[in-house]
Amino acid sequence: MIPRYTRPEMASIWEPQTRFRIWFEIEAHATDALAELGVVPKEAAAKVWEKAKDATFDVARIDEIEAEVKHDVIAFLTHLAEIVGPEARFVHQGMTSSDVLDTCLSVQLVRAADLLIKDVDRLLAALEARAFEHKLTPTIGRSHGIHAEPTTFGLKLAQAHAEFQRNRARLVAARHEVATCVISGAVGTFAQIDPRVEEYVAEKMGLAVEPVSTQVIPRDRHAAYFAALGVVASSMERVAVEIRHLQRTEVLEAEEFFSAGQKGSSAMPHKRNPVLTENITGLARLVRGMVTPALENVALWHERDISHSSVERMIGPDATVTLDFALARLAGVVEKLVIYPENMQKNLDRLGGLVHSQRVLLALTQKGASREDAYRLVQRNAMPVWRGEGDFQTLLTNDAEVRKYLTAEEIAEKFDLGYHLKHVDTIFKRVFGRS
Amino acid sequence: MIPRYTRPEMASIWEPQTRFRIWFEIEAHATDALAELGVVPKEAAAKVWEKAKDATFDVARIDEIEAEVKHDVIAFLTHLAEIVGPEARFVHQGMTSSDVLDTCLSVQLVRAADLLIKDVDRLLAALEARAFEHKLTPTIGRSHGIHAEPTTFGLKLAQAHAEFQRNRARLVAARHEVATCVISGAVGTFAQIDPRVEEYVAEKMGLAVEPVSTQVIPRDRHAAYFAALGVVASSMERVAVEIRHLQRTEVLEAEEFFSAGQKGSSAMPHKRNPVLTENITGLARLVRGMVTPALENVALWHERDISHSSVERMIGPDATVTLDFALARLAGVVEKLVIYPENMQKNLDRLGGLVHSQRVLLALTQKGASREDAYRLVQRNAMPVWRGEGDFQTLLTNDAEVRKYLTAEEIAEKFDLGYHLKHVDTIFKRVFGRS
Amino acid sequence: MIPRYTRPEMASIWEPQTRFRIWFEIEAHATDALAELGVVPKEAAAKVWEKAKDATFDVARIDEIEAEVKHDVIAFLTHLAEIVGPEARFVHQGMTSSDVLDTCLSVQLVRAADLLIKDVDRLLAALEARAFEHKLTPTIGRSHGIHAEPTTFGLKLAQAHAEFQRNRARLVAARHEVATCVISGAVGTFAQIDPRVEEYVAEKMGLAVEPVSTQVIPRDRHAAYFAALGVVASSMERVAVEIRHLQRTEVLEAEEFFSAGQKGSSAMPHKRNPVLTENITGLARLVRGMVTPALENVALWHERDISHSSVERMIGPDATVTLDFALARLAGVVEKLVIYPENMQKNLDRLGGLVHSQRVLLALTQKGASREDAYRLVQRNAMPVWRGEGDFQTLLTNDAEVRKYLTAEEIAEKFDLGYHLKHVDTIFKRVFGRS
Amino acid sequence: MIPRYTRPEMASIWEPQTRFRIWFEIEAHATDALAELGVVPKEAAAKVWEKAKDATFDVARIDEIEAEVKHDVIAFLTHLAEIVGPEARFVHQGMTSSDVLDTCLSVQLVRAADLLIKDVDRLLAALEARAFEHKLTPTIGRSHGIHAEPTTFGLKLAQAHAEFQRNRARLVAARHEVATCVISGAVGTFAQIDPRVEEYVAEKMGLAVEPVSTQVIPRDRHAAYFAALGVVASSMERVAVEIRHLQRTEVLEAEEFFSAGQKGSSAMPHKRNPVLTENITGLARLVRGMVTPALENVALWHERDISHSSVERMIGPDATVTLDFALARLAGVVEKLVIYPENMQKNLDRLGGLVHSQRVLLALTQKGASREDAYRLVQRNAMPVWRGEGDFQTLLTNDAEVRKYLTAEEIAEKFDLGYHLKHVDTIFKRVFGRS
Repeated sequence: MIPRYTRPEMASIWEPQTRFRIWFEIEAHATDALAELGVVPKEAAAKVWEKAKDATFDVARIDEIEAEVKHDVIAFLTHLAEIVGPEARFVHQGMTSSDVLDTCLSVQLVRAADLLIKDVDRLLAALEARAFEHKLTPTIGRSHGIHAEPTTFGLKLAQAHAEFQRNRARLVAARHEVATCVISGAVGTFAQIDPRVEEYVAEKMGLAVEPVSTQVIPRDRHAAYFAALGVVASSMERVAVEIRHLQRTEVLEAEEFFSAGQKGSSAMPHKRNPVLTENITGLARLVRGMVTPALENVALWHERDISHSSVERMIGPDATVTLDFALARLAGVVEKLVIYPENMQKNLDRLGGLVHSQRVLLALTQKGASREDAYRLVQRNAMPVWRGEGDFQTLLTNDAEVRKYLTAEEIAEKFDLGYHLKHVDTIFKRVFGRS
Repeated sequence: MIPRYTRPEMASIWEPQTRFRIWFEIEAHATDALAELGVVPKEAAAKVWEKAKDATFDVARIDEIEAEVKHDVIAFLTHLAEIVGPEARFVHQGMTSSDVLDTCLSVQLVRAADLLIKDVDRLLAALEARAFEHKLTPTIGRSHGIHAEPTTFGLKLAQAHAEFQRNRARLVAARHEVATCVISGAVGTFAQIDPRVEEYVAEKMGLAVEPVSTQVIPRDRHAAYFAALGVVASSMERVAVEIRHLQRTEVLEAEEFFSAGQKGSSAMPHKRNPVLTENITGLARLVRGMVTPALENVALWHERDISHSSVERMIGPDATVTLDFALARLAGVVEKLVIYPENMQKNLDRLGGLVHSQRVLLALTQKGASREDAYRLVQRNAMPVWRGEGDFQTLLTNDAEVRKYLTAEEIAEKFDLGYHLKHVDTIFKRVFGRS
Repeated sequence: MIPRYTRPEMASIWEPQTRFRIWFEIEAHATDALAELGVVPKEAAAKVWEKAKDATFDVARIDEIEAEVKHDVIAFLTHLAEIVGPEARFVHQGMTSSDVLDTCLSVQLVRAADLLIKDVDRLLAALEARAFEHKLTPTIGRSHGIHAEPTTFGLKLAQAHAEFQRNRARLVAARHEVATCVISGAVGTFAQIDPRVEEYVAEKMGLAVEPVSTQVIPRDRHAAYFAALGVVASSMERVAVEIRHLQRTEVLEAEEFFSAGQKGSSAMPHKRNPVLTENITGLARLVRGMVTPALENVALWHERDISHSSVERMIGPDATVTLDFALARLAGVVEKLVIYPENMQKNLDRLGGLVHSQRVLLALTQKGASREDAYRLVQRNAMPVWRGEGDFQTLLTNDAEVRKYLTAEEIAEKFDLGYHLKHVDTIFKRVFGRS
Repeated sequence: MIPRYTRPEMASIWEPQTRFRIWFEIEAHATDALAELGVVPKEAAAKVWEKAKDATFDVARIDEIEAEVKHDVIAFLTHLAEIVGPEARFVHQGMTSSDVLDTCLSVQLVRAADLLIKDVDRLLAALEARAFEHKLTPTIGRSHGIHAEPTTFGLKLAQAHAEFQRNRARLVAARHEVATCVISGAVGTFAQIDPRVEEYVAEKMGLAVEPVSTQVIPRDRHAAYFAALGVVASSMERVAVEIRHLQRTEVLEAEEFFSAGQKGSSAMPHKRNPVLTENITGLARLVRGMVTPALENVALWHERDISHSSVERMIGPDATVTLDFALARLAGVVEKLVIYPENMQKNLDRLGGLVHSQRVLLALTQKGASREDAYRLVQRNAMPVWRGEGDFQTLLTNDAEVRKYLTAEEIAEKFDLGYHLKHVDTIFKRVFGRS
């Protein structure tokens, strides 16, 4: 979480003030529930809200107390007592620190997921708009980095859209994974606190009740959450890598938007580097690198050990802030992507028609050639084209053995680009529900 | 995938014969669909089924052909032609290798997920049975490896059960992620094949249609699948680590079943080592280690590159076979776990009543002591107990300042174990739907 | 890099002011070299030093410029020109941004390695002191968490010492890996700058010359560096886990130092939790999680892409700061570790002599029993002891078949603890060079 | 370790027969040392060698015994007794299973390292030969995938060579890390066996003595070993990715060798896909994925737990076999790489001279233009070229403001390719020690 790769809204979720605010709400709601159950006086519960509802917690003061007592929740409660007065002794009755810490983390991760979902929505909107804009812009499809068959630029974006629809669903599922509340005491038995307090606080904080906890919310939930972020980051990298490829000097089918004042390189002023998508590629590595620590956090000892805590203090903010930043950056790149249809056409034409070889192969077998013969015939005409020694259509037309199966007209028909675009609508309907 | 950690049913999914069988089914169904659409003769489609339906594919022969043509699907099709005869030329019309390979991988991963779900079901049954058996067996709850408050052994198992209910749901979701079929041609445009072929084959193979493919099924699906396996493996490790802890010489609250003939150690014949759960711990590391390669597989170049293939050839079998083996091993461990309630009681009593300190603390504040005073009073009586200089209840009863707040009877009441078990039913109902 | 887990000296390496200071030194030394070669005026080079040598760079101003030009080195050079005046145009002649950035990163990583080596030295000193202190303190050796044979607490620490000697060597090697300087221009050809400039700056900055660069220093170097940190972190975790085990309530052979004012738990005041070593365990996961992103950084495209940069901006500081903090924390834990030899003895005695079974087994075979017979005899006397039904020595002495091979005196001799300590000196000499 | 990615020599290291052979040698040498020390009869030691030296161990028989006793070393020793006869009871005296297992693993990892070093040597030879062959073949250097400045193809290969020199050194260091022998008994105290046995066996097996062991060789050594393999794999990926880029249709500066009979694609017969380097890219992911499990293996409990074992049973063979296969494949690719200098020239010329902009920029500042002015002048002439509206040299020559600083001749001089190649010899000398 470094300023360069941080957006304020996501960062604010992880600020001390936000954390203390959430702690306060959990404690105050729990005190209400305890009052309702007759465990603490109702006036005490009311006083807690009254005094601290609009308070700004003094982070420095809490840090100071923590330096002495070496316990963050005790430090907070001590400071809360400074704000609330003697009624503060009714706060945190029968609770354990983890009740506060873990429920707070749930709230933070849920809020972070909400922002990430919003990021994906923006990206989806950008992908959809650009996909329709270039629905029928022909471009070469490549496998292994080698020209394969024509496709459209809209289809490339539709693929990304479908992938991010899945990522959205994964984020929704990840949010659901961590949206639980625990107020169950030192080992999860509710020995000192009624389960109804947990139910009450859960509802107030917009969470579900954790069915069974130890002292903490089980970490498989958090592991699943960060794993989902790792998948989303990897998809993001896929789109970024595609754009980097398209911006290569030799390809140049698309380019990141390059603002007027921006300098590309101190040394080579003509250069326009895909630095945003390269950056996203690196950020994806970072988010991915946080999956394994989260998985290693699951096997806590017995009812709990606190080894997960330092990990979460870092990857909680880092993974969500980094992914938020990168998704927003990617959405911006897609929104403003400079697309060069004429270069796409130029690249399409580069191979002298070889990209239609599959159609010719198929036509030959349909006209009775064995698979092996058809393959041989196509290959012997393809190789000269590959060496720059002619045009595929012409060579085929002049090949007597080919002509045994196909007329010149039939051959010509195989080089029609429209042939490849006939199902674009079908695919668009599948992806966007419209075409 | 080494024999030692492999069970036959899961392994068979990944055998060449199974793979070729699935390839055949995909090709034969596709030929049916093509026949229905009038692209190939219906008799040809019928002949393909007739000749190869019950054939055993000659793996060695296919390998031999592949060694020459360096292409696995062509090698298979060549061999299929040897079985089917000239009608084989109508097979694979307009299809690309990935249509076969990727749809096959989907089928394999779906079947693997089904077995893993069955494994989890066995584990869930074992956990539930043992949880009810020890629903009220008191045991000390530990946080940080330190005695905290009493809980029951059944609650420990209930926690594991709830965790594996979630893991089951994750496996179901993972299965759904990869259960798609692609037959869309060289770059996913359906240029040479009608989308209805894909729909037909998908239905026959028990899969959904991939809404938009490039040449391949997008790898975010597989990444999500392996990430889910990594989470399940980590949960499995949690249970394994718990049992390893319980079997420690100093703890000995439970033990892996030790068969009569088994030798623990060549050097120390009295030793009974938790080798199964240690083994599961290691296997969890292996499965977890396959998550990152799967994530790195997502960002293929353009419409596809084949870098994912070698990764999947290894982690496909390795992750599923290893997890299957380990889950089955864990289920066996839980089913036959030797549990020592008397040792649990002995450990519970070890701290001279200190585990009840939280209750005393709470009682003091409820009787009017400030949090700080209560803490001080409890701490000053706890420390001698910790040093083995007395019993907590006696010391408290003899502490005049404590007695200002609590009578001897009130103190005694705080040392009642039943107090901690009063909500076990509530939790069991939440987890198992019954108590 | 969050304040809680950060020490100032390491953090200062990564502060903007430090970075700009290093950039300045690289640029100024390069200008000197260029002046020497007659490419720029000597007075200009002198002026650069004169004006900026003691300058504090205005970080906010540089950020402001970067916000406009979107290029950090250009922003810095612009600000440098504000300090130096017109002679600044002779700075950075023929250089590319990476010359500055990469050489700076080398300097930072070298300095970080130096601090980490210092941390390890402190830890080694602590381990050595405590190892000699407890060189002959008997304690049970455990494998699989099960009592095996006696060892000494000093030997446990000697093992850790030997491991950290290796880690020290790995850090020295890691430092060497990254200690190179690159000033070779836009694609590493020295087209615009003489290789002698690189040689000059390298020497001044305490680095070696990078034999061949592209635009950047190849990232296999950095990958090796972070991989070494991952190994060190994992070793650190090993020691931390050992201490956590020793502090378990049932074991309690050692304990983290617990200061007077410290509160262990808000709920259970008697608890002393091994929170420092649990924390170190978590921090180890974090450092380990940064290895893979560093490895993924190696395969940059062509002469370079900038995807590594964001990764390094985070893991550069995070990995070194976190490891520095954790190593220092671990050294402190070892220095002040509270060790309980009496508890070690109590645990040693717990198994009624079973830990000597291996010696008995060996004696039986040496007296002519077959391995199988010896094993059987030991096992049948061990099992009752295990069940708490007697003392191993007594049972063996009363076993007629055992007595066929061994006299009562011979049996007694096998229960002498000193037998296990006879090679402690040998091992200490191997590890510490003295005993 | 699947046949497709396995070479026999490396695989044979991990075969059961090899393992049992190494176990035998360790046991037999240890028996010799024990005989020398008078612990066992010399004739017994001699008999062991005599009977088993040339024996083939019956793997199936050993498996059968292990199935019963559930202990691999006991199973082996039982089988050895079947071969050797009653003298076999003197074998393994005072030893523990790990003495055999861990020393064997050291031998296997050392042999594997030797093969990997041989692989790297072959790759280095290939890189050197091709580097000298194309030492002065001009090609465009690219950063961010964008044309930067000219370099030579030989320099690209020299960079790879330097990187693999470092990788060779890392493998040598990794080999050294694991080349230790442990024969120290159940908890490493040499209680039952003289340290001189360890020294003797170490020397015979070509290993160093492990200074202090627990029961096992500490796993930081193995972690460092696998981490080194991860770095090598990542470097290998870098070269593979470079070749994949060069083979792209639009670039086509080099191509994997394509044998006559090979079929590229069932659908597109003209395609020549970089399948070998794509495959290497995937294999790199696999090897990298094994680093983290190896790191997680370090923190064993107390003197040891056996969780590392299953991990090593898989990654030991898998990492070494996979890396061996991939390195050999890469060496083959480099040896037979088809290089197209004419395409390199074509690509170099593609940007109308823009790649010389840095030289022009420098010349302008040297003639007195401010950095900002020079940048502006270069940029305004570069942009039309970028849009295909002219040639850079002509535009500059026609720009009056440029001409204030530079004559037409001076401008022309900046477009000389030789300028970029003048330090190739220097770099070659640095890398290869000759030019």
